[in-house]
Amino acid sequence: MRIQVPLRHATRLLNHGPTVLVTSKAEGRANVMAAAWVMALDFDPPKVAAVIAEGTYTRELVERSGAFALNLPTVAMAGVTHAVGSASGREEDKFARHGLATFPGSTVDVPLVLGCAAWLECRVVPEPSIRERYDLFFAEVVAAWADDAVFSAGRWRFGDLATRTIHHVAGGAFFATGEIVGSERRRDA
Amino acid sequence: MRIQVPLRHATRLLNHGPTVLVTSKAEGRANVMAAAWVMALDFDPPKVAAVIAEGTYTRELVERSGAFALNLPTVAMAGVTHAVGSASGREEDKFARHGLATFPGSTVDVPLVLGCAAWLECRVVPEPSIRERYDLFFAEVVAAWADDAVFSAGRWRFGDLATRTIHHVAGGAFFATGEIVGSERRRDA
Repeated sequence: MRIQVPLRHATRLLNHGPTVLVTSKAEGRANVMAAAWVMALDFDPPKVAAVIAEGTYTRELVERSGAFALNLPTVAMAGVTHAVGSASGREEDKFARHGLATFPGSTVDVPLVLGCAAWLECRVVPEPSIRERYDLFFAEVVAAWADDAVFSAGRWRFGDLATRTIHHVAGGAFFATGEIVGSERRRDA
Repeated sequence: MRIQVPLRHATRLLNHGPTVLVTSKAEGRANVMAAAWVMALDFDPPKVAAVIAEGTYTRELVERSGAFALNLPTVAMAGVTHAVGSASGREEDKFARHGLATFPGSTVDVPLVLGCAAWLECRVVPEPSIRERYDLFFAEVVAAWADDAVFSAGRWRFGDLATRTIHHVAGGAFFATGEIVGSERRRDA
């Protein structure tokens, strides 16, 4: 079941460095791309930083709308994550092409991808010179959601491999988020 | 054995979103802290972006020297990674306190932590307004190294759990980098 994540916990969705799908929409057209160069930037209000390369269709839509969403795909979605990262939405509707169903954002007008582990709705904080020189966008997280099968009470609780988040390596390969180590494991033991 | 990683492959050390140890040195004093909010920013020349909070001793040393290094700790080092992220180097020498041995950077005057999976020596690209407003540093990777037991020929090749990189969750808990999924698994099969 999809649950709302309090904004004070939003950065916990990104601390472990997962690869994301960036969704965007402007003037009735939507797009989805994969991105590994995304991270949390601040806790309160929660902010993120994301590299969105010049010339991509996503960049065009995000510049027009001032919004995007980060969707955390699972191991079951590794193939489609690679596929949407390898083609441009200018030529084709990647949602239709890859059978990605969506639901609407609650706060920004951007589609969110069904089947993901978590979602962050983001509003761009304009930094034009940084955007032009580094392809880097800053954004405030204005709503966050998670699948309570894997994230609840402010914590990731991964089980089956297929439901884990993924971390890009190169060329269509990803690491699954692995087992927990460190003090939390000891506390649970 | 420690091998040099060609700069064109340097971003591959960070694509999967590992938590790092940030080492720094200025005027003869060195420090180490943990950071999860670090990512690749560009391929060529390779650049990184890292959040280094105001008020930290690392911030002071990095501002003075214009350099830092990113060290990728392993599962075996999860405890010490949490420990150096929970105390300030202003009060104590965290290397001595936690038994962290180092070797000198090849290109920047910063110590690198022995036992890590990989290392990136970085020179700050000054962006004062971004640093002041977001605690964010941009840096060019000027040398990169890896332990060839886990990274060789441009690829991660993790085996035993203890040698894997880690991904911060919260409060001393980390995920190990997990198994490989996606097309590379199929290619290897």
